[in-house]
Formats: sequence, C-alpha cells, structure tokens
Amino acid sequence: GVLGSGDFARSLAVRLVCSGFKVVVGSRNPKRKASLFPAAAEVTFQAEAVKKADVIFVAIFREHYSTLCDLADVLVGKILVDVSNNTEINHHKESNAEYLASLFPACTVVKGFNVVSAWTLQSGARDGNKQVLICSNNQEAKRIVAEIAQVMGFTPVDMGCMSSACEIENIPLRLLPAWKIPIFLALGLFLCFFTYNLIRQVIHPYIREQKNKLYKIPIEVVNTTLPCVSYVMLSLVYLPGVLAACSQLYYGTKYRRFPDWLDQWLRHRKQIGLLSFFCAALHAVYSLCLPMRRSHRYLLIETAVKQAVEKKMTIWVEEEVWRMEIYISVGIIALGLLSLLAITSLPSIANSLNWREFSFIQ
Amino acid sequence: GVLGSGDFARSLAVRLVCSGFKVVVGSRNPKRKASLFPAAAEVTFQAEAVKKADVIFVAIFREHYSTLCDLADVLVGKILVDVSNNTEINHHKESNAEYLASLFPACTVVKGFNVVSAWTLQSGARDGNKQVLICSNNQEAKRIVAEIAQVMGFTPVDMGCMSSACEIENIPLRLLPAWKIPIFLALGLFLCFFTYNLIRQVIHPYIREQKNKLYKIPIEVVNTTLPCVSYVMLSLVYLPGVLAACSQLYYGTKYRRFPDWLDQWLRHRKQIGLLSFFCAALHAVYSLCLPMRRSHRYLLIETAVKQAVEKKMTIWVEEEVWRMEIYISVGIIALGLLSLLAITSLPSIANSLNWREFSFIQ
Amino acid sequence: GVLGSGDFARSLAVRLVCSGFKVVVGSRNPKRKASLFPAAAEVTFQAEAVKKADVIFVAIFREHYSTLCDLADVLVGKILVDVSNNTEINHHKESNAEYLASLFPACTVVKGFNVVSAWTLQSGARDGNKQVLICSNNQEAKRIVAEIAQVMGFTPVDMGCMSSACEIENIPLRLLPAWKIPIFLALGLFLCFFTYNLIRQVIHPYIREQKNKLYKIPIEVVNTTLPCVSYVMLSLVYLPGVLAACSQLYYGTKYRRFPDWLDQWLRHRKQIGLLSFFCAALHAVYSLCLPMRRSHRYLLIETAVKQAVEKKMTIWVEEEVWRMEIYISVGIIALGLLSLLAITSLPSIANSLNWREFSFIQ
Repeated sequence: GVLGSGDFARSLAVRLVCSGFKVVVGSRNPKRKASLFPAAAEVTFQAEAVKKADVIFVAIFREHYSTLCDLADVLVGKILVDVSNNTEINHHKESNAEYLASLFPACTVVKGFNVVSAWTLQSGARDGNKQVLICSNNQEAKRIVAEIAQVMGFTPVDMGCMSSACEIENIPLRLLPAWKIPIFLALGLFLCFFTYNLIRQVIHPYIREQKNKLYKIPIEVVNTTLPCVSYVMLSLVYLPGVLAACSQLYYGTKYRRFPDWLDQWLRHRKQIGLLSFFCAALHAVYSLCLPMRRSHRYLLIETAVKQAVEKKMTIWVEEEVWRMEIYISVGIIALGLLSLLAITSLPSIANSLNWREFSFIQ
Repeated sequence: GVLGSGDFARSLAVRLVCSGFKVVVGSRNPKRKASLFPAAAEVTFQAEAVKKADVIFVAIFREHYSTLCDLADVLVGKILVDVSNNTEINHHKESNAEYLASLFPACTVVKGFNVVSAWTLQSGARDGNKQVLICSNNQEAKRIVAEIAQVMGFTPVDMGCMSSACEIENIPLRLLPAWKIPIFLALGLFLCFFTYNLIRQVIHPYIREQKNKLYKIPIEVVNTTLPCVSYVMLSLVYLPGVLAACSQLYYGTKYRRFPDWLDQWLRHRKQIGLLSFFCAALHAVYSLCLPMRRSHRYLLIETAVKQAVEKKMTIWVEEEVWRMEIYISVGIIALGLLSLLAITSLPSIANSLNWREFSFIQ
Repeated sequence: GVLGSGDFARSLAVRLVCSGFKVVVGSRNPKRKASLFPAAAEVTFQAEAVKKADVIFVAIFREHYSTLCDLADVLVGKILVDVSNNTEINHHKESNAEYLASLFPACTVVKGFNVVSAWTLQSGARDGNKQVLICSNNQEAKRIVAEIAQVMGFTPVDMGCMSSACEIENIPLRLLPAWKIPIFLALGLFLCFFTYNLIRQVIHPYIREQKNKLYKIPIEVVNTTLPCVSYVMLSLVYLPGVLAACSQLYYGTKYRRFPDWLDQWLRHRKQIGLLSFFCAALHAVYSLCLPMRRSHRYLLIETAVKQAVEKKMTIWVEEEVWRMEIYISVGIIALGLLSLLAITSLPSIANSLNWREFSFIQ
C-alpha cells in the first residue's frame, strides 16, 4: 500500500508494480488522481487501501501526518514505512519516523527509502548509490522491508534501531559537508599565490623593461602557483597533529578534549590532503606540458640561432643541469608517494587494511 | 554431503575438507570415483551419503535432477543447496533451484555457490570476487549455508527469497553486457576518424607533394583521432538526456515510458562516458609524448640551422603561441574534471555519496 | 559495563558515553581510577559493575582472565564481549575468546572490537577502516553487540561462529603480509639493474673517455632501470601459471597439490603485478620528464649550433625516427592495458565482476 499522491508516491507505485508487487494506492481524491498512477495499481480511498495492504508506505509530508489519525483503527498491526525527508538539517526535535511512531503506537514503523530520489525509483538504480538505509525497533518488520528493497533492485543496509532515524533523515540534505571548508581554503590560497606570481612574472617585467609576457598567464603562472598551494595544504595536514601532541604534552594528559577549532581541523585533514594531492598532480601535468608549447620551441630556436651567428659553442651550465635533474626526480618520487596515500583513502581499499597497516602507510 | 562426481563436486569436497568440515560424497559409482576425491572425504552410494548429511550440495546437472527422485524418502527435511548453472541466459522457464524445490517439496532448497568457479573453490578465493550469492525462502537454512560459505573463506550475500534464484543463475553467464555496444561504438568511431586523418595527414601530402610522412601514422594520426572520438562520445553521453527532456515536454508528462532505444541509450551513458574519459586520457599521454620523439628533435634542429644560415632572427608568432597556451590549459582543466567524474563512478565512492551529492558532481 | 581500567577500557567508556549509553566501569581500585574516566561513567567495584550491566566488555589481558573467576556467580547469563588482542600471531593454542568462554560456560561470549584501536574509539571512526568484526555462537548476542557497534558509528561485520575468533584476533597483528616478499623482490631487482646501468652509462664512459656524465644518475639511469624491473616482475606474474600447468601435465591430474613454493608464488601474483604496474607508471612519468631537463635543451642547442657552423643541413635519420615512434606508441598501449588490470584489482570493482568477466579481463 502507498498513501499519498505526490511525485514520490507515484514513482514508488511504478517501481513496486514493475517489481511484481500488488500495489494499492490510497488517496483522498482517488478519482481525480487515478490517471497519474500506472494502470496495474489500484487507486482507492485511504481507508480502503490500508485495509488491503500489510506494508504501507507513508508518502506524505510530516505536516499532514495528523490527517491519518482517522485511519488509526484500520492501521492497527500494520507496518508503516516512513519515506519522508526534511527540508533542513535537524529541523524538528524528533525525527519524522519517531513522530509517526508516537502518533500510531499500535503500528510498527520502519524508516527507509528516503535516501532514494523519485527519479532513481522510477528509472531503476542504474548508477550512483543503490543503498537503502533502513532502521526500525522491530527486527521482523525491518527484514520484510529489506526484502522488498532487494526485489526492487536496491541494496538494503540495516542501520539498527529507531534512534538512527534522525541520522538517516539528515543524509539526503548533506552536500559534501566535509569538503566545503577545504575547497574554499584551496581557492583562497590559489588566488593569493596567483596574484603574487602574476605581479612577479608578468606585471613587473612589463613595467620595468616594457616586455610583453602576457602569454605566460594561462600556463606558467598557474604552474608556479599550484605547487605553492599544494605545499601549504600539505603542511596544514600535518600541523594539527603536531598542535594536538603539543596540547597533550602541555596539559599532561591524553584524555582532555581538544578545543573545537582543533577538532574541526583534525576532521578535515583527509579532504585537505586529497586537495593537496590534486594540486600536485595538476602541477605535474602542467610541467610535463611545458616543452609542448610553441613558445618553448621559439625560445629554443632563437637561442640556437643567436649562438650560431655569434659562433659561441659552449653553453653547458653544470649547476643548472643538476638543479633541474634533482628537482624533477624529487618531484616524481613525491608524486608517487602522494598517489599511494590517495589510493589508500579509497573506501574499498581502506576497508581491507587494519589500523596498523593504515597508520604505517600514512 | 555432496551429490555428484564432476569437476565442481570434487573442488567443493576439497574445499570443504580443507575448511574442517566432515564431507560425505554420494556417487552412483563410489568405487571407481573414490580416487578422485581427497582421502578425508568419505565416498559412498548416494542414499548412504544423504542419510549421513544434513546439508547436501546437489552438484549435478538440471537434466539429471529427476534421477534423485528415488532418494525422495531419505531427503525429507534436509537442506539442499543447488549449485547449478545454465548454459544460456533464461534457458528454462523456471530457475534450476525452483525446479529442484518443486521436485522435493519436503526439502528446504537454498540457491548458492553457482557464481564461484571450480578453480576458485579449489585454490581459495585469492582475488576477484569473493561473494557467494545466496537465496532461499527459509531464513534458517539460508543462515546455515551462509555460515558454511563464511568458514570456506567467501563473503555470503543474502539475495532474499527464492524468486531471485533466476537472477543469480544468470550472473555467471554475463560477460560485461553493458560494455559491448559502447566498445563497438568507440571502435567504429576510431576507425572512421583514423581513416579520415590518415588520408588528410599522410596520403594527401604524398600524392600532392610526394612527401613521405608515413612516420606520422603510429603517433600523430592516432593522437588527432583520439580527441575526435572522445568528443563525439562525450556528446553521446549528454544527448539522450536532452532527447528525454524533449520527449517529456512534447508529451507533457514525465510518467510516460521512453521508447526502447532511448531507454537503452540512457542505460549505457556511464560506460560511454568512461570510454570517452579513457580516450581523453590516452590523448593526453600521446600529446605529452610528442616532444620526446626523435622527429620533433630533427625538425627543431633543421629549423634552427636553416635560420642561422639565412641569418633570420625573429620567428616569434604571437598568435601561434597563444593558441597553444590556451589549448593546453583548457585540455588540462577538462582532463581534471573528467578524472573527477571517473573517480565518482567507482562503486565504493558512489556508495558513500547521497544522490544530491552525486548529481551535483555529475 | 566495562571491566578494566587500561587505555582501551577508557577509550571504550568515553565512546559509549558519547553514543548515549549508560556505562558502568568495574575496576579493582575504583577510587583511584575514577578520575581517568569521563564523569558520566559510573566507576565502581567489579562485582557491582557486573550486576548492573547486561553487556560486559572485558578489557583486560588474557593473563588476568582467571582473576574474574570470583565473579562467576554474578556473570551468569550475561553477554561478555572479548576485546583482547595477542602480541604474536597464533600465540596461544586457542583464541582468547574461546579461552574466556571455557572459563565461564554460563555466559555468552562475543568476540569483537579488537580490530579497532583505542585512538579510533576515542576520536570516532573518521577514516580508515570502520569495520568491527564480530563472531559468536549465539545469534541474539551477536545481534545486540552489532547494534551497539552501529550506534557507536562503526560497521559491524558478521564473521560467523566462535571458530573465527582466532582469525579475528590475528588481523590487527598483520602488517601487509602479502606485500613483504614482492617489495623486497622489487628492491633487489632495482638495485641489481641500477648498478649495471650505472656502470654502463656513467662509470664506463668516465674511465674510457674521461667524460663526466654524473648528471645522468638521478633521472636517466633510474629511467632505464625501471622498465627492466617492470618486465622481470611482469614475467614473474605469468611464470608460475605456466609452471603450474606443466606440473599438472607432468603428473596427469589437476587434483594434486602444488609444492609449497609454487603455491606461495601463485598467492603473490597480484602484488607482484601491481608493483610491476607501479614501476611501469614511474617509467612513463620519468620518460615524459626527459625533454623538460635543462641538459636536453643544452644538447639540442649544441647540435644545432654545430651543424649551422659546419653548414650541414640534413640530419634526418629515418630509422631512428621510426624506432622512437614505435617504441612510444607500444609503451602507451601497454601502460593503458596495465592500468585496466590495476583498476580491476580494486576490491570494489572486483566485487562487481563475475569470475568469467574477471578472467576475461585478466
């Protein structure tokens, strides 16, 4: 049974029908709404629908839960699946599912399917996340809903008892929360260093020597900016660990909580590290592109022609050769090590390591 | 207990013995077959074996299931594990496991272990897929078989009730079904563009100016072909979405099914996108290799010598410099973004994102 | 309830309190130890603590298990969670959990939480492995402990019955066991080939022609060494398969166990292959860096100047051009194929392939 006639209710009905279930839709206005649902689903009044179904998906807004109170009698003993989402994180004091359970103490409430979008329901779980997080205080009801999810082509994940409902409801509202600060930090650093390098490499020679070096902006200036950003961010990954150790030494105990800003910082280390790796990788690609540029070719030919005309033969500067060789080989090794770190931060690799191996690599 | 004396039965017996289980093998010809099984496994007549075992692996072909009917009496109450596979997808109307269950209504039938090869069974699940998909209508039987799989070193995955058996039996027959069309598409596009570029860059100058430029084939022609393929495929990723939106606007509803060809196309977007990324990455590597080539070096020296002899000094063409700088920097940024898309399509990353985050990145 | 007052016991108590559980800590010396635990946890005598709790975490060393025998009466019917680790692999004949179960036959013993470090417990499972492996002979007890782990923010993984306890206890002692031999092998091969190339490219020209080519060490010598290591290791991946096939042909059966050294070798193929890929990738990056070097630039200009002065125009050597073009294009294709292999060895990709697809790609 599905209660409600919104977008999500329709997609759910379509999907359930496709998966071979018999679906009864309960609507307050069955005649007008029937055309919106697939032909195989029976659309009827809410009370009728509830009577015919054992598992009832409540696809209506939290604000309208109280309108179901008229159905309290017929709902006794049924399994109610709360699929609702909030519009803000921690909008209400108790989760929607707990609120529903308090309204209908004679029903078994299961939270689930809220992390799935109407679009995914309708088109099938082709890519992206196929997991359906389920929680309930009743093991048997959880098992039944999990099997329905399985047949519908999703991967049910048992999230334990009802107290996790609040956490499950907050998941769809999340938008890469751990990435916001690190990304703004990286952009800020990039802007600062870019301005500095622009002034040094383009504007300064233009003012002093009237040389037009604007062509350096898209590649050379960006390429000198990236490693600066990468270095600063890599140091920001290791600094909080040192600060934490200092704070532990200062207070003489490891059982004191760190101040909030340090805790926050420690939490973002992984994201900062990955962005640092991303900048380093971009710097490597930019550097490799340097000899491909037309300007590099022109400068080379210009030097060769100049020397040939002046009949100068030796231009080999031992120091410059060594500086470049060492710079490149250290860069490659550093990039190799950072790649290793980045690979171990993939969830599926991290899960196959124990913490001793993980900390050894890190 | 294991019924059967084929390759799979032997590997299963070996593995069960290694995992510390007591194994009884039932064969129609126990004396002749005993030498094929490990010494620790007892090989006896089928009826004997069934009497001694609680969990019986039926490692015989579907065609011979009916020969077990003589054992119907001793089989009452036992757990039968159907490990069989078909040779064609959806070969029979009902799955082998359901057929077995219909023959022996007094037994509990569990489907499982069919996704594992005889080789993996024998050598242990070292790499590749360690999952054993299990389904049954009986929770308790499913639990017992899952624990056997666990002890044998596999990861049991609960696939719900018996109706999934058909799906489980089709899995080992699958050979990258979603990749076939995209790969042929990519190969076809590659051939077309390669022929065009070959004519333009090698055959045309040869006929018109008698210049031998055959050395361009392995790298330069391939390198101009790859980005064309990549572009066309990237556009094929976004085109069906636009067509789908148009069809929805035309019919004025989102609840109408798309025509089959469009549906098929929408399903293959991820694979087409990944192949597009693969071509783009190859193009990047090829481009980076250009200045390494001996021919690049020869052309450079040739130009320098020519200019030095003719005492021409200035060859700097501002427009060419800018074109190359912008081309390279746009290419790097595009590759960086495509890499991000490719990383989020890794299953373990996709599972840790909710659909809002996933569609934000995509 | 938590028994013990060590580092792990404290972290466990902190985490349980943070997750909203009521915690009673049992210590032999409650007054002195109380200050070490969070204020919300009640610290009392062991017997008191046991009486008040249903689930008791036994966070004391195996050597002191026998001191709990005084509490045998109050422990009847409780769930004991064994969180202990050993200091050596397979140190004792039976696992700690089985030993605890034999001491208290009236209790239900669950093994779990030993793979989690005290640090992870305290700071929350931010990154790395969030899995808590649980095993027990009692389904209900296992379920209760799994839900506690869930609420604490970990992912409980059911490892079946008590016989897996030994395996679970060995996990935290493991330090990349499958990688040790392959890494030493790669380092050994690298040293051999590096010495050979150093003599050939640097020392030999110095002795014979007094030419100083030391600048070649950091990049050119390393770059000629890497592909040699990569080739030898790639051949070591495919050699044992051939040897295994030969041994099967020689003995005329596939049911004979391989000798131990061959079995060991077959087990390490994946790691050797990944190291081979790593060397190949490094070789690619080193090669791409070659034209960026200052020395490359100097040599180019030198040749151009020399030729201009001597008025020689043609230096195009068809054979050298072709050799380089073919070398580079074969290298790129080989690297592309190796990348594909490396990607399919990611656990999350491997799990989504069946063995037919996996062996097709491999």
